[in-house]
Amino acid sequence: MTQRAILLDCDPGHDDAVAILLAHGNPDIDLLAVTTVFGNQTLAKVTRNALSIATVAGIRGIPFAAGASRPLVREVEHASDIHGESGLDGPSLPEASFELDPRHAVDVIVDTVMSREPGTVTLVATGAMTNLALAVRQRPEIAERVKEVVLMGGGYHVGNWSAVAEFNIAIDPEAAHIVFNAPWPVVMVGLDLTHQALATPEVAADIAAVGTAPARFVGELLEFFGKTYRDVQGFDSPPVHDPCAVAYVIDPSIVQTVKVPIDIELTGTLTLGMTVADFRAPAPDDCTTWAATTLDHGRFWGLVVDALERIGDPGAAGGAGAQAAPAEGGQL
Amino acid sequence: MTQRAILLDCDPGHDDAVAILLAHGNPDIDLLAVTTVFGNQTLAKVTRNALSIATVAGIRGIPFAAGASRPLVREVEHASDIHGESGLDGPSLPEASFELDPRHAVDVIVDTVMSREPGTVTLVATGAMTNLALAVRQRPEIAERVKEVVLMGGGYHVGNWSAVAEFNIAIDPEAAHIVFNAPWPVVMVGLDLTHQALATPEVAADIAAVGTAPARFVGELLEFFGKTYRDVQGFDSPPVHDPCAVAYVIDPSIVQTVKVPIDIELTGTLTLGMTVADFRAPAPDDCTTWAATTLDHGRFWGLVVDALERIGDPGAAGGAGAQAAPAEGGQL
Amino acid sequence: MTQRAILLDCDPGHDDAVAILLAHGNPDIDLLAVTTVFGNQTLAKVTRNALSIATVAGIRGIPFAAGASRPLVREVEHASDIHGESGLDGPSLPEASFELDPRHAVDVIVDTVMSREPGTVTLVATGAMTNLALAVRQRPEIAERVKEVVLMGGGYHVGNWSAVAEFNIAIDPEAAHIVFNAPWPVVMVGLDLTHQALATPEVAADIAAVGTAPARFVGELLEFFGKTYRDVQGFDSPPVHDPCAVAYVIDPSIVQTVKVPIDIELTGTLTLGMTVADFRAPAPDDCTTWAATTLDHGRFWGLVVDALERIGDPGAAGGAGAQAAPAEGGQL
Amino acid sequence: MTQRAILLDCDPGHDDAVAILLAHGNPDIDLLAVTTVFGNQTLAKVTRNALSIATVAGIRGIPFAAGASRPLVREVEHASDIHGESGLDGPSLPEASFELDPRHAVDVIVDTVMSREPGTVTLVATGAMTNLALAVRQRPEIAERVKEVVLMGGGYHVGNWSAVAEFNIAIDPEAAHIVFNAPWPVVMVGLDLTHQALATPEVAADIAAVGTAPARFVGELLEFFGKTYRDVQGFDSPPVHDPCAVAYVIDPSIVQTVKVPIDIELTGTLTLGMTVADFRAPAPDDCTTWAATTLDHGRFWGLVVDALERIGDPGAAGGAGAQAAPAEGGQL
Repeated sequence: MTQRAILLDCDPGHDDAVAILLAHGNPDIDLLAVTTVFGNQTLAKVTRNALSIATVAGIRGIPFAAGASRPLVREVEHASDIHGESGLDGPSLPEASFELDPRHAVDVIVDTVMSREPGTVTLVATGAMTNLALAVRQRPEIAERVKEVVLMGGGYHVGNWSAVAEFNIAIDPEAAHIVFNAPWPVVMVGLDLTHQALATPEVAADIAAVGTAPARFVGELLEFFGKTYRDVQGFDSPPVHDPCAVAYVIDPSIVQTVKVPIDIELTGTLTLGMTVADFRAPAPDDCTTWAATTLDHGRFWGLVVDALERIGDPGAAGGAGAQAAPAEGGQL
Repeated sequence: MTQRAILLDCDPGHDDAVAILLAHGNPDIDLLAVTTVFGNQTLAKVTRNALSIATVAGIRGIPFAAGASRPLVREVEHASDIHGESGLDGPSLPEASFELDPRHAVDVIVDTVMSREPGTVTLVATGAMTNLALAVRQRPEIAERVKEVVLMGGGYHVGNWSAVAEFNIAIDPEAAHIVFNAPWPVVMVGLDLTHQALATPEVAADIAAVGTAPARFVGELLEFFGKTYRDVQGFDSPPVHDPCAVAYVIDPSIVQTVKVPIDIELTGTLTLGMTVADFRAPAPDDCTTWAATTLDHGRFWGLVVDALERIGDPGAAGGAGAQAAPAEGGQL
Repeated sequence: MTQRAILLDCDPGHDDAVAILLAHGNPDIDLLAVTTVFGNQTLAKVTRNALSIATVAGIRGIPFAAGASRPLVREVEHASDIHGESGLDGPSLPEASFELDPRHAVDVIVDTVMSREPGTVTLVATGAMTNLALAVRQRPEIAERVKEVVLMGGGYHVGNWSAVAEFNIAIDPEAAHIVFNAPWPVVMVGLDLTHQALATPEVAADIAAVGTAPARFVGELLEFFGKTYRDVQGFDSPPVHDPCAVAYVIDPSIVQTVKVPIDIELTGTLTLGMTVADFRAPAPDDCTTWAATTLDHGRFWGLVVDALERIGDPGAAGGAGAQAAPAEGGQL
Repeated sequence: MTQRAILLDCDPGHDDAVAILLAHGNPDIDLLAVTTVFGNQTLAKVTRNALSIATVAGIRGIPFAAGASRPLVREVEHASDIHGESGLDGPSLPEASFELDPRHAVDVIVDTVMSREPGTVTLVATGAMTNLALAVRQRPEIAERVKEVVLMGGGYHVGNWSAVAEFNIAIDPEAAHIVFNAPWPVVMVGLDLTHQALATPEVAADIAAVGTAPARFVGELLEFFGKTYRDVQGFDSPPVHDPCAVAYVIDPSIVQTVKVPIDIELTGTLTLGMTVADFRAPAPDDCTTWAATTLDHGRFWGLVVDALERIGDPGAAGGAGAQAAPAEGGQL
């Protein structure tokens, strides 16, 4: 199998961090660029967090670019109750070891898609859909060149930001409406799926057993994330949403999906931002949306542990970094 | 156990007919009155159907009254694709053997509730919520005297009139909003539950084995209903919604419920009329709404067959009618 | 000219009081009944106020009945910033000299319309539209028997409860939607018109010159009303809305109207409850709605002064007083 | 007075053509760039029209760039009933004499604003607000550098695309919401104003008297425009909307305005895309929106005639033509 080339648009965020590490460490993924968007915290914070994670993971040589700092139409909202003041509370965060790309995330998305072969780039989105929406509205021609959009967001039977809406969609429903209705395939990895991706004590033990600095970093992230999910939403173990979207790209047999028409509610009083899926009849032939339904929990976490093992200890002397050159040790 | 006194507000309708027969034939139910509302067909048709069913079942001595012919705000819609031109296509319908009550359904509801002991009358609604809404808005004092409202309608994860809305709620969402928010307990027996109430071939055989005219009538209803549900919605066997609400009143262990806040979406473009249930946290103490979750299929259909056996053959000479006096044979 | 028979549905309220006095004192109006609805204050308060006004004015022998205490769908709102704690702050209020009719306002409306010749009863509404809406939904047959509905509410270019919505409509927009779309003629006497009905110092002087107890009562009402309108909405003189609707019934040349399609916005975020009039083209033939445009200020206030003069001093010794003697005898 | 530098974002369109000619011919305007947006016709057509108008007017040396081909969220709508199949029906259209700028309109807007002194560039928008919305969402820093946004669109008491919404706003209400709420001053030159800008027979005669090819071009445009406005909307003379926005920039005493809060209705059923202005109280200090109220008809059309006279006959042999020679240096 050839590598799957992805651009990851995210708002780190604890689970975004795991998504970045999985995308970086998995041998089947070619991570082309990382772009950031407001969401779990302010754009400034999540962008700084993305660079810190790059340092932890030893990511080099690809653009990291900042994007939208607010939604298209609504007032901005963040999720500091879940992700803390920094957006990545828990571990201590290293300084960034390289500079942001000067381009806007929207331009990085457009340039990345237009500069590669048609049908080869997958956009993985794990924050608000604002960057993708701006990109496809300004440059509609990217839609037919993108292989597919795989996004963490929404849910057909589960909500978290409201009774029936999920945070990433609800904070910019107009952007989500644009993304779900653009002429590219959209795979929605929603709460129905990600609430199966619980970081149980067994998972935590497996990650701890890797024994590297990045693994310890993930362990500390999951510890904080587990505590807020327990306190705020009553979960025994935290659902680690975002890497599920990356796992789908790696191996769709780990994240099963069903083809179903999905659209975004923009005017509902109780349902604003709901991802409305119509299961009443088989999806019509021109349907371009899929919903993730069932996770293989064991193989999913196996992918994460494997990625951490491959990443090794980028900051350690003689460590086996995913990139050839080690990151500066002092920064970790 | 003492009898449970109910007023049945309905729009017969095939499954309404079964609900009426179950309410009439079951010994634990004291059927106080039947009121009608537009829905499956026009008010005129469903009212005539209610009287025909009364004749088939040998119901006597209680008021039947007609109510609202249209929703509060929206334009009127009917379900002739499912229930046919008459609203009760399939069997031949006998003439009514008695007259409608001259009062409006709203007045019958108010009079029935106010004339009985507080906390003793259950309102069972199996059509649009319009009559109940008008009653509680004109005479708010009925709310605290009603034991509970048990309604067939809505669904927390299933729709039929749209992707996420059910017919009885969607055709008058403002009325449903009034009923769900009034200060009385509301038990929503929605599609999540009633799609378990399938009239399988085994069920049809059990009903046929009763061997009476009412049982044959039900058999013919289910045959027509099964055909339209197969053609229009792709069901192998038809879900017989409305008697599930009556079954809940008879024995809540047959229709399990969960306490959960439910409200009605009034402004959604894709979600208008959705019964939005919030399962994110345990229901608060002041929650007054319940959703039905799990049906005991065998015991449910056992209740229906038992009711038909008790009803016997009201029109036959020497038949064992539920009422002491037989109905006039000539009218069947 | 024969008298115009009206039923007045109101929520007194300072300007409602003037409307009642105008309807009672004008010889061309046959006031059949007064019904009350929540609005300017709670139903209990506005109903008590209506009875007090009847005492002041010497009204006898017609039913006064209480109606809806809340809107159909929305949460209840009152206008105590304009009308004070009592709903009629300013003058001291006499005790009621007779009892409320035991019927609900909706039943009084239906009974009044159905018991008179078709096409003879005008419904004048100066509060929320809730009672009228409930009446026409429960008994649709009243629509074709009503001569017309003349209502104070709305505005095609002016709002007060929001930028573009008026209080009487905005507090129960669903009820207004029902009334405006029912098959009866509707004359909207909105803010465009009533903001011309200013109680200037000259008007106050003319009323004071009448010299009776009811005139003093009106003077005290207008003084309080003027103060709150000055403080809350910045008016030099208060607009006395409700009697304009009665004035239209008395003489349409005083309140000019234009035929124009009008409908009620039910889902707008900024425009909820707006009376949307479409002036882009001549009204189609089947249009049943009119909007009031231009008031003859002098003749309007002349009607009010004339009514006060005809009412005289009902409570005065030897007068045709509310305490002393019946009002029968051709209205006065 | 120094020149006012403007970027004109438009969708020619008959009145857009007059706006371009006025901006080009008026000595107080420095036309920096012209960008196009879908609206009166498809993006391809209005862009071709813009280039044709440049040829007619002898415009050279500034970028013309194409932008959005569809609204942010809604389905695309055009106004071919008013502007014909080409978007500029009536005169024959010359071929473009130069090439489009390769940049997207959004990039031209951003580059133009960021490359000039802060507070010097006015954005004049006479089509849908999509380009401006995309620009300010992708690059929020332009908002504080723009002098002001002057737009033809909306109306506080008048609609044309619906009873209360105007075409330019209604075809992309989310974009309008973004533009009206961004932190830059917005002057709304709406239908209240532009319906005063009627091209009467006297105006047509004044334009014809100029006697040049561009004047004949405008004459033919107004003839077609007049006919469709007469047939479709019943106007005696057509309202020539778009140049009013340019006239405001030239001389605000010709287009009087009032400071008033304005926001865009995004969820209304009858009011979607309405520009809701709140006139109930004086505008608060932080209000950044103005509405145009009163046009000086004579001076406005005087500006247009003057611009045509200054443009002369760019294509004529020996004239100050587009092909032959530069227009007055001050402009080119």
